[in-house]
Amino acid sequence: MNNFENMCPKYEAAIDIIGKKWTGLIIRVLMSGPKRFKDIKKQIPDMSDRMLTERMKELESVGIVKRDVYPETPVRIEYTLTDKGNSLKEVIGEIQRWSDNWIEL
Amino acid sequence: MNNFENMCPKYEAAIDIIGKKWTGLIIRVLMSGPKRFKDIKKQIPDMSDRMLTERMKELESVGIVKRDVYPETPVRIEYTLTDKGNSLKEVIGEIQRWSDNWIEL
Repeated sequence: MNNFENMCPKYEAAIDIIGKKWTGLIIRVLMSGPKRFKDIKKQIPDMSDRMLTERMKELESVGIVKRDVYPETPVRIEYTLTDKGNSLKEVIGEIQRWSDNWIEL
Repeated sequence: MNNFENMCPKYEAAIDIIGKKWTGLIIRVLMSGPKRFKDIKKQIPDMSDRMLTERMKELESVGIVKRDVYPETPVRIEYTLTDKGNSLKEVIGEIQRWSDNWIEL
């Protein structure tokens, strides 16, 4: 039989990204289009500003989110899912489906 | 616009389960059928015994794994996925597909 861990470090890496607290929610919020920091915050009010800042930096560093700065007054910063980020739609959809069927609160 | 966090506490609960370190791997190992503790361990050698014990208790408590004790000599204990656990196949499959396409190591 195969050794799964050696077989699938990519799987582990994916879990490390999408498994972090708030990350699934942040990505789902961004699926409806580019958002400013405060717009994301508004939809996930229990998450602290510090946590959102940290998560956005992580998501940017792994290429799931891109950050665009528009030199207006005041400056406008928008976060958008990349192709890599958008392709998480099915992953997140399956998690949603499974949780709707199986999680009782 | 809706408030995602209030909308989807089930999603959060699912992430709390499948997002934990090693959990995805343990479930994948169990997808090939009932396993004894040492058989799971063999496929995920970097995980400590203590961690595996903890994870199996968690997975049992949320109804994803069931633990059967066979009164043989020596006693045989097997872990099997429940229907709830088996239905994670699509979730885990999507994570696998996404990570194969997008994660570079």
